[in-house]
Amino acid sequence: MAIERIAILGTGLIGGSVGMALRQNGFTGPILGWDREVVQAAIALARETITEIAGDPITAAQQSDVVLLSGPVFSILEWLEKLAPVLRPDQLVTDVGSVKGILCERAAGLYNQPGRPGFLPGHPMAGKEVSGAANADGSIFHGAVWLFTEGADGAEMSAEARERANAWREWTHRFGCRTIDLDPKRHDELCAWVSHLPQFVSTALSALLEDKFRDDEDLRAIGGRALREMTRLGASPYSMWRDIAHTNEEAVAASLYALEQRLTHLRENLKTPELRKEFDLANRFRLGRPHKPAKTEKRPNQ
Amino acid sequence: MAIERIAILGTGLIGGSVGMALRQNGFTGPILGWDREVVQAAIALARETITEIAGDPITAAQQSDVVLLSGPVFSILEWLEKLAPVLRPDQLVTDVGSVKGILCERAAGLYNQPGRPGFLPGHPMAGKEVSGAANADGSIFHGAVWLFTEGADGAEMSAEARERANAWREWTHRFGCRTIDLDPKRHDELCAWVSHLPQFVSTALSALLEDKFRDDEDLRAIGGRALREMTRLGASPYSMWRDIAHTNEEAVAASLYALEQRLTHLRENLKTPELRKEFDLANRFRLGRPHKPAKTEKRPNQ
Repeated sequence: MAIERIAILGTGLIGGSVGMALRQNGFTGPILGWDREVVQAAIALARETITEIAGDPITAAQQSDVVLLSGPVFSILEWLEKLAPVLRPDQLVTDVGSVKGILCERAAGLYNQPGRPGFLPGHPMAGKEVSGAANADGSIFHGAVWLFTEGADGAEMSAEARERANAWREWTHRFGCRTIDLDPKRHDELCAWVSHLPQFVSTALSALLEDKFRDDEDLRAIGGRALREMTRLGASPYSMWRDIAHTNEEAVAASLYALEQRLTHLRENLKTPELRKEFDLANRFRLGRPHKPAKTEKRPNQ
Repeated sequence: MAIERIAILGTGLIGGSVGMALRQNGFTGPILGWDREVVQAAIALARETITEIAGDPITAAQQSDVVLLSGPVFSILEWLEKLAPVLRPDQLVTDVGSVKGILCERAAGLYNQPGRPGFLPGHPMAGKEVSGAANADGSIFHGAVWLFTEGADGAEMSAEARERANAWREWTHRFGCRTIDLDPKRHDELCAWVSHLPQFVSTALSALLEDKFRDDEDLRAIGGRALREMTRLGASPYSMWRDIAHTNEEAVAASLYALEQRLTHLRENLKTPELRKEFDLANRFRLGRPHKPAKTEKRPNQ
């Protein structure tokens, strides 16, 4: 077996969910877990997302076939640098970081070179607005996409690490994921639009409402599903998103600026036929065509 | 019984859902339905959200204790004006229109005066991004708030109409709603923030993505729950929202402008500590406190 022993550094929401998904899908080897917050590792163990708590993360990494790095982007960056000199070429490091450009740049030269460990940069498009091992859930990967951004560097990893990289991709399929390979820069650009922009819009909207309506009970009472959905991500942690804002700033800023302009355009056209064009485009994005009232398959009396 | 016979003018998504909720919650009298699109009335009948199709809406209204007006705001406005001179003082008109200021202004003098029918302006905070009688669903009112905006005018309706208005409020409770009474102007202001702003943001975001990524299969593939939620309302119909944009323009424009400014502020502070303030405020809106990783109730090993 290419992967018999796994270390997870960062056993919070995503790291814990991966451990859970491994066990739910038949992985029977040891899963050593470590977290900088010891209580998170303890919860991960209690919930059986890991099989043991690692006392020392470096030792745990050295004893494993695959090391999974999970957490904010800068924490993954730090581990990438720390682990490169202490792992063997047959070992594989993979991660679940939300921004890939900076990680792949930093890994170049440190991994996937003769005498160096393998690195398979990954990013499951799954998550929750809550964090922590207590919210870990192996089923969040069902039907999601797990992105990989190996680039040309990946070709240089050792045969053993390659075997483990292929086995890891197989595991993500068992979790219920489809995998897509992207160039790291394109990954960061696309994720700015489909993930980071929605997050920052939801944060801005939630912050605005909190500022303006803090003590207004009516506002909270009357908001329905639309408000709940559009502000759900307002609960997301700064600790995770600070790193994304830092490491993908250019693409995120470009997407925010484009949306600001779009909102201005819409606001200036609330009473003009331009508004129809915006709804038509939006309908096409969601429905593939302009909105039509639903009719039943067989129309009665026709 | 104060309400034995009901006419629903506009048997699409909301009108149809009200008919369904009435029947699911024990209303056994006739529900006459009419829609300007005859197929919608036919579907409403086939789905038993109404008990008969009204050939002539005016006659159906005249034969009913309560007339429910459902549809875009301007269509409700038109019916309010048409029905005022042809109904008796003991009859009650109520509606589900999304903007109340303009409807209440126009109804003043026409309703709730000696010799005039009663008018109870209402607005259930429930809906879907899809439209039409085929999507009607009596359960959408469960746990929602049904707003009423009678104002001082309401005190002038006839005793019989008042009895029907009270009975109608009772029915909304049976549908699973909590009712809140608001001044029409405050209603429109609050709804701009909790309902109209989320809609227009979702429309703008969806339209932007359609414009920029129309043929990009990767974008659609990798978008997860965040993208789906933030663009769900992009499917909403222009026909409904055009009237809301027209009749609540000032409040909607003010809310959009405030969000534009907020997004600009966030964009300019992606790398500064201001970003933490925005996340803290957003966390407070959703969680009542800054985000903390979830810990289990009983912490293991403590």
